[in-house]
Amino acid sequence: MSALNFQVLHEDRGTAARVGRLTLPHGTVDTPTFMPVGTRAALRAATPAQVVATGSQMVLANTYHLSIRPGEGLVAKAGGLHRFMNMPLPILTDSGGFQVFSLPGVEISEEGVRFAFEKGGKRVFLSPERAIQIQEELGADVIMAFDECIEYPCERSYAEISVDRTTRWAERCLAARTRTDDQALFGIVQGAMWEDLRHRSADALVAMDFPGYAVGGLSVGEGREKMERVLDFTVPRLPADKPRYLMGAGLAEDLLAGIARGIDMFDCVIPTRHARGALLYTFQGKMRITQRRYRRDMYPVDTRCTCECCQGFSRAYLHHLFDAGEVLGTTLAVIHNLTFLSQLVARIREAIAADRLTEYTAEFMARYQR
Amino acid sequence: MSALNFQVLHEDRGTAARVGRLTLPHGTVDTPTFMPVGTRAALRAATPAQVVATGSQMVLANTYHLSIRPGEGLVAKAGGLHRFMNMPLPILTDSGGFQVFSLPGVEISEEGVRFAFEKGGKRVFLSPERAIQIQEELGADVIMAFDECIEYPCERSYAEISVDRTTRWAERCLAARTRTDDQALFGIVQGAMWEDLRHRSADALVAMDFPGYAVGGLSVGEGREKMERVLDFTVPRLPADKPRYLMGAGLAEDLLAGIARGIDMFDCVIPTRHARGALLYTFQGKMRITQRRYRRDMYPVDTRCTCECCQGFSRAYLHHLFDAGEVLGTTLAVIHNLTFLSQLVARIREAIAADRLTEYTAEFMARYQR
Repeated sequence: MSALNFQVLHEDRGTAARVGRLTLPHGTVDTPTFMPVGTRAALRAATPAQVVATGSQMVLANTYHLSIRPGEGLVAKAGGLHRFMNMPLPILTDSGGFQVFSLPGVEISEEGVRFAFEKGGKRVFLSPERAIQIQEELGADVIMAFDECIEYPCERSYAEISVDRTTRWAERCLAARTRTDDQALFGIVQGAMWEDLRHRSADALVAMDFPGYAVGGLSVGEGREKMERVLDFTVPRLPADKPRYLMGAGLAEDLLAGIARGIDMFDCVIPTRHARGALLYTFQGKMRITQRRYRRDMYPVDTRCTCECCQGFSRAYLHHLFDAGEVLGTTLAVIHNLTFLSQLVARIREAIAADRLTEYTAEFMARYQR
Repeated sequence: MSALNFQVLHEDRGTAARVGRLTLPHGTVDTPTFMPVGTRAALRAATPAQVVATGSQMVLANTYHLSIRPGEGLVAKAGGLHRFMNMPLPILTDSGGFQVFSLPGVEISEEGVRFAFEKGGKRVFLSPERAIQIQEELGADVIMAFDECIEYPCERSYAEISVDRTTRWAERCLAARTRTDDQALFGIVQGAMWEDLRHRSADALVAMDFPGYAVGGLSVGEGREKMERVLDFTVPRLPADKPRYLMGAGLAEDLLAGIARGIDMFDCVIPTRHARGALLYTFQGKMRITQRRYRRDMYPVDTRCTCECCQGFSRAYLHHLFDAGEVLGTTLAVIHNLTFLSQLVARIREAIAADRLTEYTAEFMARYQR
C-alpha cells in the first residue's frame, strides 16, 4: 500500500504545465494546487470549516513551531495533527530546516544542527532522524526531508558542501522512516543558483526514488528572474510522474511562473499575512481595503467571487472593520484571499486542460497588474 | 402595523419569571433571551453565520461607537445595520447615553450633552432628538431612549434632578421618532438605588406607553445584592404585557437573578470579553483554559455542548491556541460562550414552562460555583 498516488491527467501543449490528481490518506487534491499555511496548527482566525469552504484542498503546518509548542508528543497523544486541529484536508509538514537555519548561532555538523529555540534558551539538536521522528508524531500526509536551505547570496564553495550534506541527510531521512504506509516523504532539491549543483542534487535524490520532490532554496530574495531560471534548469531533471513542489512561493505571479515550468504544489504565508494587512486579491488587481476610496464603496471585494466575504459584505464594511481594529476583518480577508487562490488554480487547471496556459497567463496578468 | 409584538406564554408559579415570544421586523425571539454585543457592528472574530449557529436570537450594537465610526450616514447608505454587517437576527441599539456619560468633561444641560469623542477632539452635541435620528439611520429593530446613566454611588439630590430630566428626554425621544412602523422605542427606568425615584421614573415612563422598558443604571458596580433589591421594587412597577430589559448584565448569575424577577432581555460584553481572555463557561463551572492542567486535556470544553468549538476541538487545542497567541482561540471561545448562554436561557425557559425555576436555579448554581 502506498501513502501517495499521483496521476498526470493532461499536459499543456505550450508549456511544461500539467494537471494532475494527488491522492493522499486524507483526500484527493487537484494539481496544480496552493496550500495555505497554518504555522501553529491554525489558519489565523479561520476555522477548518471556513478553510474547507475556500476550496483549499491541502494545508501546511510547521514542524519547527509545533515541536516547540505544543510539542509533537502532545499532538501524537491527540491522535495526530488532523485530529488535534480538526482539519479534514490532507496536511503537509515542512521539516523544520528552513526555520532552524534562519536562527542566529546555529552550529551545523554532519550529524545535524545544534541551535537554541530562543535567545539564551537551552540548545537543542535537530537531525534528519529527529526531524522524521517529529513529523511521524505529527502525522501529516506528506512530510519533508531535513535539508539546509542555503541563504542568498552564498559562496559556491559553501553551496557545494551544503548540497552534498543535504543529499546525505535525505538518505538518512529515508532510512529513519517507520510510517511508510500512511506518510509520503518528499526529497528537497537544493543547490542555490548554480545549474550544475541543482542537477547534482536532483539526480542524487531522484536515484533515491522519493514519491515527490520539492524545489527548496528559492523565494529567499533572489528575485523572480533568477527563480524562473533555476526552475527552468531544475524541474526538467525531476521525474514527470511524481508531484513537484515549489516551497515558499504563493503570489499569483509565482504560481503562474512555477506552473508553466511544471510545478504542481505551492505553499506560502503571504496570502494570510496580506489578509491581516488588509491587502485583498482580486482578478482585477490587488486592493488595499484601508484606502480612503473604499470607505463608502458598497460593492463586494470581487463582484464575481463566491466566498463568504464577497457574498455577505461590502468593501465599506471591510474598510470599517480594519479601521476599527476588529479582527473579523482578518477572518473575512483570509477567507477571501484563500478563495481567490483556489479559484486561480482552478482556472489555471482549466486553461492547461484546454492547452492555453500561455494565453490565460497573459490575460490574467494584463488585468491583475492594472 | 406595529414594529413589536410581545406575548407572555407562561408564568412561573414560584417566581416572577415568564417565557414569552418577541416578534420584531427581523425575526422572532424566545424570551428570556441574552443578546451578545457587537459594539462596532462585529462580534469579535465570529461571523454572522457563526453567531446565528450559537443559537443567539438577537444582538446589540452601540450607537455611540457606530456614530463615530463608520458614521450613521454610511450605515444608512449601506441599507442599515442589518445589511451593513450582514446580520439576519433582530438588532437592538443602545442610545449612546451610557458611553457618553462615562467620558471626562461631559457638560449636561436640559437640551442635551456636550462632549468630545476623544481627548482634545472636537466637541459634539448629543440630545434625545439626535440620538433618535442616529438610531433611525442605523435601523435596528429596537432602539433606546436617550437617558443619563447615573454613576454609582451618587448623591440623592443629583439623582432626583437626573431622573426627572431623563423622563423629559424620554418624552422628547418619543416625539422625535419618524420610523414608528419598523422600529420599537424602549424607555429606560433610572433612579439609582432609591425605591421612590425608581417608582417615579417607572410610573412616568409607563404613562408614556412605550412598547418595552429597560432597567438602566444597574451593573455599574453596586453589587449583586443591591441590584436584586432594585429589581425587586422596580420590575413590578412595569407593565406585565411588555418586554423588560436589564441593561448591561450577562453573567449566568445575573440572568438567573433577573429572570426570577421578571426580566426578559439581557445584554453584556462580558461573555465575549471573557472569551478573549480564555475564560470559558460550562454547566460545571468556569474554565480558565490557559491553566496548565488543560495542556494535555483531550476532552472538549463541555462534553455535552453541541457548539462548533466543543464538537471539533479539545481543551488541549484551545490551550495551545491561547498559548501561541492564535486568534482562532478567541473565535472558538466566543462561539462556545455564546452557545453556553443560548443553552442556559433555553434551559431556563424550559424550567419556567415546568414551574420549576427556583429548583433549576439551585441545581445550576450548585454545579456552576464548584
